[in-house]
Amino acid sequence: MAQFINNKDATVTEAIDGVIKASGGKLARIDGYPHIRVVVRNDWDKSKVALVSGGGSGHEPAHAGFVGAGMLTAAVCGDVFASPSVDAVLAGILSVTGPAGCLLIVKNYTGDRLNFGLAAERARAFGLKVSIVIVDDDIALPDLPQPRGLAGTLFVHKIAGAMAESGASLEDITTTAERVIDGTKSIGMSLDTCTVPGSPKENRIGAGKAELGLGIHGEAGAQQIDYHNAEQAMAAVTAKLAAVMENKPHVVLLNNLGGTSVLEMAILTNDLTKSSIAKNLKMIVGPAAMMTSLDMRGFSVSVYPLSAEDHAWLSAPCAPSAWPGCTPIKPVSIIELPDGLTPIQPIPSEHAQTAAFLTKCCQILINAEVDLNGLDAKSGDGDTGSTLAGAARALIGALDRLPLADHTQLLRAIGQELSQTMGGSSGVLLAIFFTAAGDAASSGRAMVAALKDGLERMQQIGGAQLGDRTMVDALKPALDALETNGMADAASAARKGAVHTSTIVKAKAGRASYINAEQLEGHIDPGAEAVARLFEQLSD
Amino acid sequence: MAQFINNKDATVTEAIDGVIKASGGKLARIDGYPHIRVVVRNDWDKSKVALVSGGGSGHEPAHAGFVGAGMLTAAVCGDVFASPSVDAVLAGILSVTGPAGCLLIVKNYTGDRLNFGLAAERARAFGLKVSIVIVDDDIALPDLPQPRGLAGTLFVHKIAGAMAESGASLEDITTTAERVIDGTKSIGMSLDTCTVPGSPKENRIGAGKAELGLGIHGEAGAQQIDYHNAEQAMAAVTAKLAAVMENKPHVVLLNNLGGTSVLEMAILTNDLTKSSIAKNLKMIVGPAAMMTSLDMRGFSVSVYPLSAEDHAWLSAPCAPSAWPGCTPIKPVSIIELPDGLTPIQPIPSEHAQTAAFLTKCCQILINAEVDLNGLDAKSGDGDTGSTLAGAARALIGALDRLPLADHTQLLRAIGQELSQTMGGSSGVLLAIFFTAAGDAASSGRAMVAALKDGLERMQQIGGAQLGDRTMVDALKPALDALETNGMADAASAARKGAVHTSTIVKAKAGRASYINAEQLEGHIDPGAEAVARLFEQLSD
Repeated sequence: MAQFINNKDATVTEAIDGVIKASGGKLARIDGYPHIRVVVRNDWDKSKVALVSGGGSGHEPAHAGFVGAGMLTAAVCGDVFASPSVDAVLAGILSVTGPAGCLLIVKNYTGDRLNFGLAAERARAFGLKVSIVIVDDDIALPDLPQPRGLAGTLFVHKIAGAMAESGASLEDITTTAERVIDGTKSIGMSLDTCTVPGSPKENRIGAGKAELGLGIHGEAGAQQIDYHNAEQAMAAVTAKLAAVMENKPHVVLLNNLGGTSVLEMAILTNDLTKSSIAKNLKMIVGPAAMMTSLDMRGFSVSVYPLSAEDHAWLSAPCAPSAWPGCTPIKPVSIIELPDGLTPIQPIPSEHAQTAAFLTKCCQILINAEVDLNGLDAKSGDGDTGSTLAGAARALIGALDRLPLADHTQLLRAIGQELSQTMGGSSGVLLAIFFTAAGDAASSGRAMVAALKDGLERMQQIGGAQLGDRTMVDALKPALDALETNGMADAASAARKGAVHTSTIVKAKAGRASYINAEQLEGHIDPGAEAVARLFEQLSD
Repeated sequence: MAQFINNKDATVTEAIDGVIKASGGKLARIDGYPHIRVVVRNDWDKSKVALVSGGGSGHEPAHAGFVGAGMLTAAVCGDVFASPSVDAVLAGILSVTGPAGCLLIVKNYTGDRLNFGLAAERARAFGLKVSIVIVDDDIALPDLPQPRGLAGTLFVHKIAGAMAESGASLEDITTTAERVIDGTKSIGMSLDTCTVPGSPKENRIGAGKAELGLGIHGEAGAQQIDYHNAEQAMAAVTAKLAAVMENKPHVVLLNNLGGTSVLEMAILTNDLTKSSIAKNLKMIVGPAAMMTSLDMRGFSVSVYPLSAEDHAWLSAPCAPSAWPGCTPIKPVSIIELPDGLTPIQPIPSEHAQTAAFLTKCCQILINAEVDLNGLDAKSGDGDTGSTLAGAARALIGALDRLPLADHTQLLRAIGQELSQTMGGSSGVLLAIFFTAAGDAASSGRAMVAALKDGLERMQQIGGAQLGDRTMVDALKPALDALETNGMADAASAARKGAVHTSTIVKAKAGRASYINAEQLEGHIDPGAEAVARLFEQLSD
């Protein structure tokens, strides 16, 4: 699988530069590429406790994406899935630590522990106050003495970050961070492995299988299980969490491991809120990509018991846009369906002259069925005649329920009939034409002016302009002529417009736009022909 | 490729429920599942102009994710890649439209145009003020009379949304929206096709190829091009944009089409800021998944000329967390590397007794090399003896540059030597032990107390507790005994602890934790044996 990378060795530095350039000047980096890759707040004055995290890259937006007021002060970035060096960590600590001290938030991997640990010692030798906490929220392997650090790390970043921003002491922040770590449990699931830049993709997970209990470095899950659907996947994950959760309110973090679509994450959110642990879930962070494993098509769920104090820290505003916020989980609020979806039925009325006129119009279209189908066969699927004739027959059949004596209401009623009986785009467009004309008529416009307004609205929605080889080429000049000179002129204008369509070899709207010039030349557009016949025979 | 969905037919309703439940009560839906799927603001009082958008699903977070104060008032959701019905759109309009009216923001697809268009007419028949704008930002097919609506739609949502929130009139918002649409240009690229729920995945794009000029419904791109790397991909995209952009400041929107990792999007951001259009890009929205095509591994770039007025609308706060903000693009700010990365070199000093003591310690470890390797071969890779002996030889060689007369400085100096000469985890851990002990000594702690502090720090970082089958099992009791009773007792405590490790069949830290019980039983841990020999021979 190809990826959007360049030189494999520059992957991390290029990504960091991208993050910083798009940060609006809020982020900076420490000099020393390529060995020192440390993203820092650009607005940092060392007046408060600094929070430094980091580790291998490939978990974006963690950790650089969480640098900013109210979260991290610096992120130290290693190569993809590899710990940063002691020097890089030390550079981060030395750059951001003032008299208030510094807390290192380290995910529980040997390399990170050792390199952050030694860097802390070297920083202390300079007289700096440095604490270190190790995040070990993974519950996939209960017998493992050193559980891994997963997306639950974000709880530590956010709570410690909000405390630091508030001016809390290093001791208080460290104590709270340890409490958060003690309470946080995470587990992940994936349908596929991730693609490590520059390495061939391992296809470890068979069809119909999923991995449960993942790390975030592409390592195999604790177990492979049969995969059926999202609900069952979420049930497998929440069953593991249920076994270690206390029966009290929790906050939950739903993390996209990188390659899961936003649509799927929303479905998983819904499944989470219906799961066995749902009754104890009060707040949610996400769904969002926070601690990814490159492009892994999977998710992880982290839970943490929610105290009032932590609620406040989690809800406090913070600068990093990668933090999706922490919101209450609520049932779906359903608003009543509005009145008006059932169209208002007009009151039928009789009007012999109108009935005769409408019937004549419909009969003209019915009579033209075969010819129009023949024309349409040149440029489309040969059904224009049948579509119009069918609508005309239906309209004749509906005459006795139409408000024939009220021309304003009649236009709208015809629109409504067409929208129900005439299929395809043309049915909707003619419905718009008549409904909009009725709309204009009800505002006091004269009949022809109202029809012209309807045409304009139909053109806006349909997108056809004069010269695009549609019925508009006949209808527009006909209505213009009708307004100023009467029916005879309208008929000849319609015919002239229709004939002109046979010279337009590049259709710009409708289905004929997909047909090439040779097939169009010399053939009148069937819609325009229908309009021309209508006006010609009405003017007789 | 399996996906996190359940019943295919419930995909959209389940996803909507997930979005609403995680919205913190800010969103609601209109009754009428499964046909009416409309997400609305739950805090809407109809006092301002309503903005309604929508279309087919599969573009999440668009459009439901952009419902909220400062952006959309309602989103009407069709099936995946299928337009919502006229009734659904009408329900949305009727639910949210007050006297100020409603603007429909419609992406330029025939189904959406017609269904939103007819719904608008039906809403107008109720006397509602409804405007409609059609977004057609795609530049992939310059000859296409009806360009598609792509991620540039977000510019319309945000600018119109901010105006509506400020109380602007429907007329002004519509005029502005049309101006935004006129100026917005988008084009996308992908390395793979998307996976439509319930359908087999089409593998259309060959190895080494990419598609340029994509829609957002899985349709083939305007052209297939050779794919080399991210920079070239971005160059191909920006070349298309450059051809249609004016030479003036623009805002750019970098959209993840769904399956691109956050790391890759950051690299693409960097490539965008170095591209041929970069000089005209002043602000950026993203990178983020905003208008996706399910899980498509691709991106799109949208540009829009930036006026001062639009700058303000784009930067205005808004409720939806899916909007990533609009930030200035700035060069990377580089902070000077801090002093202190080069360890402070201690001033060498002479002290015959200390030199003799250190040499003796080292010689004990050197003499134990073969035996310790043999023990390590039972539970590890057989190099503990060589590692310790190598470090001991290096330390003897470094005696003349150590501050032998200053025991506080000496501990730190030994830590520094070990971190430079001793490989592996044990080198880092012993470096932490000595550095932390020096730290404690410099704070006035007596030598043995300082060594105990060093051990505690080493245990925190290494994670080993008593009984975990490591050197700690000998070292901790030895230091305890040394503090109270002297060297002879320390030696016997160390030996007792070392012997005890031979009965521990489940290691909990270090490499032996991967070895099974049978292989461990009866063998002393090599680190513990080294400590025991050290204390025994020193006490002689």
